[in-house]
Amino acid sequence: MSQPTSQRTRLSPEQRREQLLDLGVRLLAHRSLDELSIDLLAEEAGISRGLLYHYFGNKHAFHEAVVRRAADDLIEQTSPPADGDPMERMLTSLAAYLDYVVANYEGYLSLVKAAAGGNETLREIYEEARSALNSRIFREDAQGDIVPDTPATRLVVRGWSAMVEELVLSWIADPRGITREQLLEIMAASLPAIVEVAG
Amino acid sequence: MSQPTSQRTRLSPEQRREQLLDLGVRLLAHRSLDELSIDLLAEEAGISRGLLYHYFGNKHAFHEAVVRRAADDLIEQTSPPADGDPMERMLTSLAAYLDYVVANYEGYLSLVKAAAGGNETLREIYEEARSALNSRIFREDAQGDIVPDTPATRLVVRGWSAMVEELVLSWIADPRGITREQLLEIMAASLPAIVEVAG
Repeated sequence: MSQPTSQRTRLSPEQRREQLLDLGVRLLAHRSLDELSIDLLAEEAGISRGLLYHYFGNKHAFHEAVVRRAADDLIEQTSPPADGDPMERMLTSLAAYLDYVVANYEGYLSLVKAAAGGNETLREIYEEARSALNSRIFREDAQGDIVPDTPATRLVVRGWSAMVEELVLSWIADPRGITREQLLEIMAASLPAIVEVAG
Repeated sequence: MSQPTSQRTRLSPEQRREQLLDLGVRLLAHRSLDELSIDLLAEEAGISRGLLYHYFGNKHAFHEAVVRRAADDLIEQTSPPADGDPMERMLTSLAAYLDYVVANYEGYLSLVKAAAGGNETLREIYEEARSALNSRIFREDAQGDIVPDTPATRLVVRGWSAMVEELVLSWIADPRGITREQLLEIMAASLPAIVEVAG
């Protein structure tokens, strides 16, 4: 997992911080936030704890920065293709979301828990990311082919998004009897189905 | 809110404990778990803190007992009528769930947070209650009129149940544009709709 950290490479402090954040995000993929310590990052990066405190201030600030980066990655990686049928584009985006959570299960689960459990800053980052993903549904589907934009459908998308998260986390924990394609189809097709009953 | 605590009433220790639990559940309705202290219960019940420690051991055990009682109440109050059309019975059960969360919003929200946030005992109580509510869908619909019992529909019901919780909590926080009847209709009708796309 460790990233080569040659002392010969001259990086600006900002570049160095970015590199350390990337490493933090990679370490978080298979660990909970509780397990992501400054000590571990120092060991994996091959630099001193003191230098990390210089870059991040304290453990909380480090966690916040890593989680913010992870949320940005999630939003970027789930960006739908620019063209194509709205349902196909949503399916591509959902598949990317599923792949992201599969690849970053431990860290993602711990973020969901931390956000729900009352860490206010992490909750804000989580809610912002959720909100960005939910708003994208409406932005990407500006003609309302899948979901017309009404107070009821805004609420429905919030609920559907909670369902998608639960389905993905439950399926990863126990995928018996459901293929990846079935899961994706259930998640994608359920949105217009719920919107229809909400109509 | 306080329950009359006449010293003339002779209650067994078990009855007294039950009475205190009922009071704890009522106090939790409009408070978070963090706000539900032994001191508050002592004041409301008009008895000494020492006696409460005698009944409950410590604050954690008190919270566990109150949350367990609240979960039992939720399961009991959302029990569907014995007879009738499966969808009608589910709608009645969902309406009772909505009313329960409306009436106990602060406490319920804090339980969801505590359960998600890593308090293991509260998480178990929460998961048991969720699981009981989800299993009831299949038990009450033994003919599979709404949901046939398959691995895919077991997963779907988990997801739908997460959606219902999110819809209820979001709607209570901001009900603009959606009536109670619309919300209930969305929640009830979405289950067969999602099951159909999962078919």
